[in-house]
Amino acid sequence: MFISETTVRVRYNETDKMGYVYHGNYAQYFEIGRTDALRQVGLAYKEFEDNGVMMPVIHLQSTYIKPARYDDLLTIKTIIKKLPGVKTEFHFEIRNQDDTLITTGEVFLVNIDMQTNRPTRCPQVLMDKLIPFFNSH
Amino acid sequence: MFISETTVRVRYNETDKMGYVYHGNYAQYFEIGRTDALRQVGLAYKEFEDNGVMMPVIHLQSTYIKPARYDDLLTIKTIIKKLPGVKTEFHFEIRNQDDTLITTGEVFLVNIDMQTNRPTRCPQVLMDKLIPFFNSH
Amino acid sequence: MFISETTVRVRYNETDKMGYVYHGNYAQYFEIGRTDALRQVGLAYKEFEDNGVMMPVIHLQSTYIKPARYDDLLTIKTIIKKLPGVKTEFHFEIRNQDDTLITTGEVFLVNIDMQTNRPTRCPQVLMDKLIPFFNSH
Amino acid sequence: MFISETTVRVRYNETDKMGYVYHGNYAQYFEIGRTDALRQVGLAYKEFEDNGVMMPVIHLQSTYIKPARYDDLLTIKTIIKKLPGVKTEFHFEIRNQDDTLITTGEVFLVNIDMQTNRPTRCPQVLMDKLIPFFNSH
Repeated sequence: MFISETTVRVRYNETDKMGYVYHGNYAQYFEIGRTDALRQVGLAYKEFEDNGVMMPVIHLQSTYIKPARYDDLLTIKTIIKKLPGVKTEFHFEIRNQDDTLITTGEVFLVNIDMQTNRPTRCPQVLMDKLIPFFNSH
Repeated sequence: MFISETTVRVRYNETDKMGYVYHGNYAQYFEIGRTDALRQVGLAYKEFEDNGVMMPVIHLQSTYIKPARYDDLLTIKTIIKKLPGVKTEFHFEIRNQDDTLITTGEVFLVNIDMQTNRPTRCPQVLMDKLIPFFNSH
Repeated sequence: MFISETTVRVRYNETDKMGYVYHGNYAQYFEIGRTDALRQVGLAYKEFEDNGVMMPVIHLQSTYIKPARYDDLLTIKTIIKKLPGVKTEFHFEIRNQDDTLITTGEVFLVNIDMQTNRPTRCPQVLMDKLIPFFNSH
Repeated sequence: MFISETTVRVRYNETDKMGYVYHGNYAQYFEIGRTDALRQVGLAYKEFEDNGVMMPVIHLQSTYIKPARYDDLLTIKTIIKKLPGVKTEFHFEIRNQDDTLITTGEVFLVNIDMQTNRPTRCPQVLMDKLIPFFNSH
């Protein structure tokens, strides 16, 4: 299992008239979570695209437990529970500065070869970074 | 079953560097779908809030089938499959101008009494509008 | 002078915790205004890009006079006061359903040849549409 | 003169199909700049609102010099050139990781007493923090 954490501070424009973070904006937080997870193992998502692989989202699910508010400092926990294949599955838990669980989510990406526009397997450079986290005993 | 349709044109800022609508923006389209569904039966979501009931989203799920592009004219089909209780469940299908299915989704809202900050049943005015669509025989 | 009008309804996510439309979102409304202005003379901005000319914004100015609120039906007046050269200058006035002036703005675009990545003159197809509005007597 | 710097990394959803940061999103970067400027002198904008003063934007201007791209690490320089009165004027310069000037801007806020809904002078707590930066000799 691979786990990574990063923080994000809630921006004013991310709130809505209810005074809470608009529910649709958590998709951005999930994206920050997985981008920073890659960065923490020395990879930049940008380079995948520069190397001809894009990773569009094919599925997103989120459950909103407690509201987040303007200026909250959120911690995004990004979890990969199994090694990626054509699909990479990310799980997320977002907590605020009081360690209250705010939102959980799942985002599934698929690897697309930008030349053929068809699914392809996970870039080897990413596999190499992830495999050590899934070696048992 | 209650079904409603509305259209939305993809804005430039809703696309991302992949050239497609950013996946997180579909939450807005779902919101437009259910707001317009209410409007088509003569109700304004705004009035619920003005009358002390807010309806935060507690769950969202979406599956991305085909990309939508800038200036696409999307049709959002909003479906209520069962009468709301404390929770209202909306289902969505979004198609483009070629009738290609782009995205499906589900959004669950909960009714919150803004004075007590506790869940409450669906406003009667909305129930009155929906019940005729669920009368069997 | 060329004048065009279009309407846009304020989305929930466009409001912020003040209860008003977030000031940064007017850039989108200005964009809707000028896109619809083109559409009303039979042109699609999308086709400019498909034909190798993109029109990035080089300057934006807006003055916020009164707040807009959720579900407001805004009228965007888009004005071109002089024929485009390398630069196209759009002026905007946004009013709500009570005809209250909400925001004024200016947006300047520059035409960029996507092959050379250099400024170029306004596409002839657009000039042909605009010239009749600037012919005096 | 008061000067403060903060950084922000460009998010995927902030880009558009041109591959650059959408011009309307710089309003958010300016907001991050001035919020962090306050934080660096020990103040939280949130507390102004909690204490009954809100600061809506009344004017925004931005000039786009070079594009910013996904994952760029931008430095936002926030400048206050004169002591606030009813109005506070912020100036901004945004540079990328290569020290290229990307965008400049100005944002004017007005202090509003949330009880009377009328303009009021700048909160004393903010004045106390700023005055030392404007003491000559």
